[in-house]
Amino acid sequence: MSLDTAAVKPIERLASTLAGDMAQVNEMIRDRMASEHAPRIPEITAHLVEAGGKRLRPMLTLASARLCGYSGGIDHIRLAATVEFIHTATLLHDDVVDESDRRRGRPTANLLWDNKSSVLVGDYLFARSFQLMVETGSLRVLDILSNASATIAEGEVLQLTTAQNLSTNEETYLKVIRGKTAALFSAATEVGGVIAGSSDDHVLALRDYGDALGIAFQMADDLLDYAGDSAAIGKNAGDDFRERKLTLPAIKAIAAATTEERAFWKRVIEKGDQRDGDLEEAQALMARHGAFESGRNDANRWSAQAKAALGPLPAGDIHDMLGDLADYVVARIN
Amino acid sequence: MSLDTAAVKPIERLASTLAGDMAQVNEMIRDRMASEHAPRIPEITAHLVEAGGKRLRPMLTLASARLCGYSGGIDHIRLAATVEFIHTATLLHDDVVDESDRRRGRPTANLLWDNKSSVLVGDYLFARSFQLMVETGSLRVLDILSNASATIAEGEVLQLTTAQNLSTNEETYLKVIRGKTAALFSAATEVGGVIAGSSDDHVLALRDYGDALGIAFQMADDLLDYAGDSAAIGKNAGDDFRERKLTLPAIKAIAAATTEERAFWKRVIEKGDQRDGDLEEAQALMARHGAFESGRNDANRWSAQAKAALGPLPAGDIHDMLGDLADYVVARIN
Repeated sequence: MSLDTAAVKPIERLASTLAGDMAQVNEMIRDRMASEHAPRIPEITAHLVEAGGKRLRPMLTLASARLCGYSGGIDHIRLAATVEFIHTATLLHDDVVDESDRRRGRPTANLLWDNKSSVLVGDYLFARSFQLMVETGSLRVLDILSNASATIAEGEVLQLTTAQNLSTNEETYLKVIRGKTAALFSAATEVGGVIAGSSDDHVLALRDYGDALGIAFQMADDLLDYAGDSAAIGKNAGDDFRERKLTLPAIKAIAAATTEERAFWKRVIEKGDQRDGDLEEAQALMARHGAFESGRNDANRWSAQAKAALGPLPAGDIHDMLGDLADYVVARIN
Repeated sequence: MSLDTAAVKPIERLASTLAGDMAQVNEMIRDRMASEHAPRIPEITAHLVEAGGKRLRPMLTLASARLCGYSGGIDHIRLAATVEFIHTATLLHDDVVDESDRRRGRPTANLLWDNKSSVLVGDYLFARSFQLMVETGSLRVLDILSNASATIAEGEVLQLTTAQNLSTNEETYLKVIRGKTAALFSAATEVGGVIAGSSDDHVLALRDYGDALGIAFQMADDLLDYAGDSAAIGKNAGDDFRERKLTLPAIKAIAAATTEERAFWKRVIEKGDQRDGDLEEAQALMARHGAFESGRNDANRWSAQAKAALGPLPAGDIHDMLGDLADYVVARIN
C-alpha cells in the first residue's frame, strides 16, 4: 500500500498553518531536554526527537487551542511540548519492553546506547513534562494529563499480560489501544480546548475527536503491521507477529479459526514456536477470514466518528484540516 | 556493625505516634494499586510494598504535616502515599538498571517477573502518584514534586554516566545522592509543611532537614555497602563494587591512591576485570587511606546539619523524634 499523496495534505496544511507555534514548541523541547549534569540526556532525546517524527500529537494540541480561539500566552506551547515529551518517554520505554531494534526507520535508542539509559531518560522526560504542565497553573489540565498517564501505563501493562494469550478479544484490544494511543491523543486535544477557556461541550467534542482519531490511527497501524511492507511504514512489518502481540487482524482471524488453524495460532502465538513462512501463513489466514476487510471497516467507522465529533466546534480552516486528518489516518489502509 | 537497638527507637516512636495516619496511608496505597484491567500491577507492587520496608519517606511527610499542626483533611495521607509510590517506582526502575537480584532481603521484581513488567509497573505507579498529588489541589505541592521528580531522574542518569569513571569526585557524588535519595526526602518533608499552611521559614527548615537527612542516610548506606555484612543491611555487600559504581569510600580511596593502587582501581572499576579477593583488596585500600573514617565524619556532619535545620520548627514530641532520626540514620556506621 503506498501513501496517497493527496491525503498527506491535511498534516502538511496543519504544519504550515501552525508553523510559528511549532517553531516555538521545537525550541522549548530543545531547551528543556538540556541537562547540566547528564549530557547523555539531550543526546538520546535528540536522537528520537530529531528523527523526523510527524509531531502529530503536539500539533493536535496547538490546533485545538487555536480552533478554540486561544491567544496571548504560551500555555499551548507548553502543553504541546508536554505531550511530545510524554510520547517520547513512552517510546523509549516501549522499545525496552518490546526489544525493538528499529523506530522511524532508524536504530532505537536502546540499541545505540543501552536499556538502562532508555529507562532513565524516559523517566527524565516524564518529569520534564510534569514540570511543564505545572507551569500552566491549570489544575484541570493537570487532572486530564494525570488521568491520561495512568491510562497509558495501565494499557501498556495490559498489553503485556494479553500478549501470547489466544483468548484476547476485541473488547480487550480496544482497552489496550485506548491506553497506548488514544489516551494521549484525546488528552492532547482536550487540554488545547481547556487552555483556551472553551465551553464544556467544546472541550468534550475535542476529547471525543482525539479518542476516536487515536483509535482509528492505531487500528490502521496494526493492520499495516500485517498487511504493509517495511519501507512504507518505517518499521519492520510482522513485528507484532514476532512479539506474539494479538492485534485486531489476528484477533479476528483467531475468532474465525478452524480447529486446524487454531493449532497453528497456538504454536506460533502461545508457544512462540515460529518458523520460516509462518508470517505469510498468518497473513493468508487473515485474508481468508476477511480480517483485513473487517478491520478496515472498523478503522473507517472510528475515523467517521472522529469527524462527527467535530460538529459543535467553530467552523474554519483548522476545523476542516482536523476533519481531513481523520480521513488521512485511515488513508494508508484504504 | 550491628544495629544499635537504642537508636532504632526514633523510627519506632514515629511509627507509633503516627500509627493512625499510617494505617490510612496503607489503605490508600492498596486502594490505588488496584487495576481493573491489569492484575499484574497489584501483584508486583504488593511484592515490594509489603516487603517490610520501613516506610520512612511517607512517615516524613506525615510527621512534617503534624509537626506544623495539620489537621482536618486527608491531603497529608494523599501526599504520604504519593511519596511511597514515587519511591516504589524508582526502586522498580533501579532494579532493572542495576540488574539487581535482591532488594530488602527478597528477590527483586525483575527477577520474579521480568524487566518489562518492572518498567511498566514503575510507570504506572508514577502516574498514580501524579493523580494523588493533583487531588490535593495545591499547585505549590505539584511544583515541589515535579521538580523533585526531575532531580531524581537526572541524578539516576548522572550516576549511570559516572559509573566506571575514575575521575568522579565528591562534588559529583553529592549531586548523584541528592538525586537518588535527598530530593525525595526533602520533597517529602517540604510538602508536609506546605499542606499544613506553614510559614515560609518553617517550610524551608523542613526542606533543609529532609535534604541533609537524605544525604546522611545515603552516605551511611554507601559506606555500609563496603564495610557492612549482607545480613545486617538486607542486600548484598559489595554490590556497588560489582556494579563499578563510584561511591564515597571508593572516591576517597582513589583520590589518595598510589600509582600501583591506581592501576588496581583502573582494572576493577574502569575495565571491570574483577577477580576473587578484589573486593577485600578494595576494602583494605579504603581502610589504609582512612576512607571509612573520613566518610563517617562526612555523614555525621550532614546528620548534625539535619538536626540544626529543625531549629525554627515547633518544639514537641515529633520535633524530638525527627532530631533523633537524624542520629539514627548514621547510627549504623558509628
